[in-house]
Amino acid sequence: MSDNPTHADGSRVLANLNALRGIGAYKSGVHKPTFSEPHMTSLAWLAERLPEAGLAATIDGIGNVLGTSSKSGPKLLAGSHLESQNYAGWLDGPLGVVYALEAARVLNSDPTVKGAVEVAAWCDEEGHFGSFLGSRSYVGGVTEAEIDTARDRNSDRTMRQALQSVGLAGRPRATAERGRHIGYVEAHIEQGESLERGNLKIGIVTSIVGIWQYRITFVGEQNHAGTTRMEIRKDAGLALARFCVAIDDRFPKACGPRTVWTTGRITLDPGAPSIIPGRADMLFQIRDDDPAVIARLEDLLRSMISEVNARGRCSVTLERIRTGAPAMMDAAFQNAIEAASTSFAGGRSVRMPSGAGHDAQVLATIMPAAMLFVPSIGGISHHWSENTADADIVTGAQVFVEACRRLLS
Amino acid sequence: MSDNPTHADGSRVLANLNALRGIGAYKSGVHKPTFSEPHMTSLAWLAERLPEAGLAATIDGIGNVLGTSSKSGPKLLAGSHLESQNYAGWLDGPLGVVYALEAARVLNSDPTVKGAVEVAAWCDEEGHFGSFLGSRSYVGGVTEAEIDTARDRNSDRTMRQALQSVGLAGRPRATAERGRHIGYVEAHIEQGESLERGNLKIGIVTSIVGIWQYRITFVGEQNHAGTTRMEIRKDAGLALARFCVAIDDRFPKACGPRTVWTTGRITLDPGAPSIIPGRADMLFQIRDDDPAVIARLEDLLRSMISEVNARGRCSVTLERIRTGAPAMMDAAFQNAIEAASTSFAGGRSVRMPSGAGHDAQVLATIMPAAMLFVPSIGGISHHWSENTADADIVTGAQVFVEACRRLLS
Repeated sequence: MSDNPTHADGSRVLANLNALRGIGAYKSGVHKPTFSEPHMTSLAWLAERLPEAGLAATIDGIGNVLGTSSKSGPKLLAGSHLESQNYAGWLDGPLGVVYALEAARVLNSDPTVKGAVEVAAWCDEEGHFGSFLGSRSYVGGVTEAEIDTARDRNSDRTMRQALQSVGLAGRPRATAERGRHIGYVEAHIEQGESLERGNLKIGIVTSIVGIWQYRITFVGEQNHAGTTRMEIRKDAGLALARFCVAIDDRFPKACGPRTVWTTGRITLDPGAPSIIPGRADMLFQIRDDDPAVIARLEDLLRSMISEVNARGRCSVTLERIRTGAPAMMDAAFQNAIEAASTSFAGGRSVRMPSGAGHDAQVLATIMPAAMLFVPSIGGISHHWSENTADADIVTGAQVFVEACRRLLS
Repeated sequence: MSDNPTHADGSRVLANLNALRGIGAYKSGVHKPTFSEPHMTSLAWLAERLPEAGLAATIDGIGNVLGTSSKSGPKLLAGSHLESQNYAGWLDGPLGVVYALEAARVLNSDPTVKGAVEVAAWCDEEGHFGSFLGSRSYVGGVTEAEIDTARDRNSDRTMRQALQSVGLAGRPRATAERGRHIGYVEAHIEQGESLERGNLKIGIVTSIVGIWQYRITFVGEQNHAGTTRMEIRKDAGLALARFCVAIDDRFPKACGPRTVWTTGRITLDPGAPSIIPGRADMLFQIRDDDPAVIARLEDLLRSMISEVNARGRCSVTLERIRTGAPAMMDAAFQNAIEAASTSFAGGRSVRMPSGAGHDAQVLATIMPAAMLFVPSIGGISHHWSENTADADIVTGAQVFVEACRRLLS
């Protein structure tokens, strides 16, 4: 039991996180793909803990774990996710679930608190089968047809096969009862190094950036790598490389203060050592929380493409394959987190956008939402060495529980 | 029959080439991977024609077709290959085989000619299973162990399975009888556009360039594409793109007059749109017939790599994965082709290196060897639209037969 039962119990939080780390452990991290055995064991672990926080547990037909309260008064929804990227870190997801569980334990039994914290673990935030399937299902955004076509990116099995094999096929999917919740809060590791570098303990998320994704395709002329003189080549791969470098040179002059852009995949066709690539494409992504910045960068991309096409050696086309509007976090919720940081983190907090996507952006479409970040050591993320200092985990839990208390007041 | 039985019969040459084009036709080209049904049918077609040229036909245990003469006097070996790249051209290979067959038909029955032309179709010049397997087997360079491990790059089957399925398993492999041949001649399409641009009809090959191949690997730091600020990224893919552009900028100042270089494949790891590549590699190839040029370019590569490593953001390593010494063509044989060009192509010939590899480079390791090129329309090669004007095919045949006559004199 907590020394002070009205505040977060730091050792209980660490013990819970380490219990989840022990399920599907990989080096100092975990390997828990969606619907894997360690993932399902983690869901069961949470479902067993929820009654201790005064919550009735259900695991629904898409793998969401929900802890609901029969207490009267306002309800605050809190949570994150329990599956991991492959061979990844122990905190990405579980931190937010354990903080939510801790808030429910502390506040739901506190007679001075009106209402209750309800807990959610959203399934597949990491996208093994799709994009935010669990939270999108909860807000009513996933059709049966989408589940029919979803497939495990780690294997060839369908989502229906996976649901069948873990015993969830045929269960109803839980959807949000409109008006039930005053809002949603989610804690997460920062996954960057802004907090660490600023010696700050809490990030108060102002927005979750949108992701715009493009396929940029270069067409030249496939030819023999031995017999085709350099002067007459139309090498699509080289055109692509020049384009990547031009982006790196020109985007900094047009971007916003926190814009990021990434070329994550390059494919040369046919991809043989003795053939000049006739075709090349790249997956290119831009993230920002300001659509005006995105519009400016898209204009720049299009003008760069026109320049390449005007030179005439290779032709280039741009296809936008993903458009992600940024999600704004609720101002009053941000203020509650800031006030809690003043009490429990010495005010060492900063307002910042989230460069990564989170379930909070999905919940924000139907209720006020907010996020709290704790520092990531070295900014490392999506890798088994991901970590946060124990003291920072505890501070984050105290701020989180206090913020929930303020939101329920 | 030929109007003039002492010269090449142009219509017979064209008819034979079109007969081979009809086996495994694809658009205006062919699809004849090694040991495919149309490839085997083409070998049988050749074996049936050889007796008409006074030659005894055998198909050996690696798929080489050999036509041998019992005539006394000097023997000249001539040939090329019958399989094709996938969905590729009709002349790459068959041209040289049909010219060799035509030379044997015309010269082996000519009482004024001493000795005979012997014909070879080397198996798998196109490398579906390995590198020059047929001609290397003939010169004694292929072990049984190499055949054991060879696999079809189009499928998962082994070479042993393929040999079994086409009925060649267990047959002996033919090897060169040392001293039997005065040399080897091979005709081929140029696969480039030097002859066409110069309005020339015959390329007299001086050397077959060597191929040096490298894997260049960049190691940066894999990280989240949303949460990692641009300033601190160590993007291995971007480092690779900058390197490709630097090669394109700096190689022209250090290369020889005919050097070519190609980046045929690029791989970013892990290759996901939301992850900054932590590792990237490229397959890079240089071709030249002058090892001094290669040495200079390798020095340049190494100094460029040192510069990247000195900057320290990403580290780079260079691994040489293939070293191909150039093969010099025989001077007297070149002179014979030039003299034949003067008689049959109005002297519209040029001496030139071959940028592509050919079986002649393998035969050159055990006997004098030479090659003759005919023009490629638009320089197109390894594509079904590959072509040569009929008139140029006929001119090439006449020069080839005359060159063989001179070599046997």
